[in-house]
Amino acid sequence: MIEDKNPKRTPLSELGEFKLIEHLTEQFKVKQKSTVTSIGDDAAVLNYDKKQIVVTTDLLVEGVHFDLSYVPLKHLGYKAIIVNLSDVYAMNATATQVTVSIAVSNRFPLEALEELYAGIATAAEIYNVDVVGGDTTSSTSGLIISVTAIGEVKKGEEVLRSGAKPNDLLVITGDIGGAYMGLQILEREKEVFKVNPNSQPDLSMYTYIIERQLKPEARKDIVELLKELEVKPTSMIDISDGLSSEVIHLCKQSKVGVDVYENKIPLDPQVISTCEEFNIDSTTIALNGGEDYELLMTISQEDFPKIKGNPNLTVIGYMTEEDRGMHLVTRAETKIPIIAKGWNALGES
Amino acid sequence: MIEDKNPKRTPLSELGEFKLIEHLTEQFKVKQKSTVTSIGDDAAVLNYDKKQIVVTTDLLVEGVHFDLSYVPLKHLGYKAIIVNLSDVYAMNATATQVTVSIAVSNRFPLEALEELYAGIATAAEIYNVDVVGGDTTSSTSGLIISVTAIGEVKKGEEVLRSGAKPNDLLVITGDIGGAYMGLQILEREKEVFKVNPNSQPDLSMYTYIIERQLKPEARKDIVELLKELEVKPTSMIDISDGLSSEVIHLCKQSKVGVDVYENKIPLDPQVISTCEEFNIDSTTIALNGGEDYELLMTISQEDFPKIKGNPNLTVIGYMTEEDRGMHLVTRAETKIPIIAKGWNALGES
Repeated sequence: MIEDKNPKRTPLSELGEFKLIEHLTEQFKVKQKSTVTSIGDDAAVLNYDKKQIVVTTDLLVEGVHFDLSYVPLKHLGYKAIIVNLSDVYAMNATATQVTVSIAVSNRFPLEALEELYAGIATAAEIYNVDVVGGDTTSSTSGLIISVTAIGEVKKGEEVLRSGAKPNDLLVITGDIGGAYMGLQILEREKEVFKVNPNSQPDLSMYTYIIERQLKPEARKDIVELLKELEVKPTSMIDISDGLSSEVIHLCKQSKVGVDVYENKIPLDPQVISTCEEFNIDSTTIALNGGEDYELLMTISQEDFPKIKGNPNLTVIGYMTEEDRGMHLVTRAETKIPIIAKGWNALGES
Repeated sequence: MIEDKNPKRTPLSELGEFKLIEHLTEQFKVKQKSTVTSIGDDAAVLNYDKKQIVVTTDLLVEGVHFDLSYVPLKHLGYKAIIVNLSDVYAMNATATQVTVSIAVSNRFPLEALEELYAGIATAAEIYNVDVVGGDTTSSTSGLIISVTAIGEVKKGEEVLRSGAKPNDLLVITGDIGGAYMGLQILEREKEVFKVNPNSQPDLSMYTYIIERQLKPEARKDIVELLKELEVKPTSMIDISDGLSSEVIHLCKQSKVGVDVYENKIPLDPQVISTCEEFNIDSTTIALNGGEDYELLMTISQEDFPKIKGNPNLTVIGYMTEEDRGMHLVTRAETKIPIIAKGWNALGES
């Protein structure tokens, strides 16, 4: 319903594996100084001089992580890179390279893969990372994308999940809940489309939240901003599974508790209005929604003056001793325990 | 028919994603000095000091790369690591870390994943690599394994595919064709088993070639041997798709030609006898078989005395000027052009 269905369909078998990889990857130019040799050998050669590197990997599976009936392939390629870069930034590192492997069934023509790779190339361009390797193979059903991202960070500048201390401030970037509510809109329109394929939905009220779902961005800017502000967070994580889940990770790995203030959680007006339309509590969405790819960090109280008033950073709570537990302080000033209800990729589905 | 079917079946949904990852990965201990932090954060932190790194990735898809009706899951886990390490060694590098992502349908119980991870852990132990990350998610059908391997290599010691020169010797490790013939035996027994599930096949005649298929090894020892012998190959590649295909890669990327001598290609007696049994030409199998994970390299003629007589290394030809083309010199001393008929993952299947 969003994607322009391309009428040209070149079967993948026309090219064969090597020519296909060559065709899809010839657009990738090396820009990073650390990329010594890229695609075309058994492995890429990388040189980070004296810097440490960070490595992270994610697998996206059709029917589990995305639905091609409303996700354009170009957006999917873009998002596959973003979700991995987000993990690199959550280490306070600079993303430098990615490898991209795809398994694809024969129902996809070459043109579909070109779209996917166009999205990958766009993300690589915007985030200044080199695509240095990968694998392309067939699958018995559907599309699977596996991305590994590598970043560099000076020794001692990496930020783990485990460094939060009691009294540290809990800080979040941007706003949350948008990606989840965008998905609700897309799912609803898919159902409408099934009933009436000629319907022309007016989605202009939902542009921000749909973009949050289909074309999320990773917070490269925040890593740069923190350097500028001379703030090194004590811990950091990216918000892929929902705020509750990530807060729990930080607390457990840092052995601290937390008080999160409901009235401080940053929500976009479109999230609030769409939650009202769907008759869902917006705090529930913020806590459990997922896929926002914002960063959640803790900073020492003495760094507060450096971040105060910055529109990108919102203090939403503070860390406590571990035995105080993890709580949401509601608008009514009652304390309720934070439990993870985030999206579970291995749930009952 | 080979795998011991474990009667205990714990549904994956009983654990949930985070507990599952924790459960499967708790066995991995960090051994490499370069692993600063491993599994449990947004990314692993690695420090190679002044060394360069190499990165490679491979995707294994059920029904395309493996058939669980005769591949035990433990062997599959082992092989998934091996095929990636092989690419690292083909760069003349030392493998240090891997990340492992799997997508798995709900038909797999926890015990199946434990088997798979036991194989991964065994390979990591034997090859001395750390498992530093990964992703575990559900798939709509079948099992998909994505591995990224990282290795380290001193600057200037990496060996690319592009460095072969005319008059260099073409050298191969071990013997080839075994993995492919092992697969033929397994496929045949699968058909027999379908007809008569109570048949007890005697596979003792085929132990070597079945092991070459089910439990291949990567030539870590060759990288060490080359250092000992003080030989730096001019080019190198691992043999995953068959000798022809890899010879063509070396020639094209090095802009040279080649003469490969049929009578020099090392074949195990089991490969020869099984080829006779199947009435297939063993040279065809050696050229096109694939999955042997031996190394194919070129060395300067002046290094020949250093490798002469070494049982691991066989000279099978020499490189020529590019315009001389790529040829097999047969036992009858006729020259036939080498063309790639290697296994094609995106073929007509």
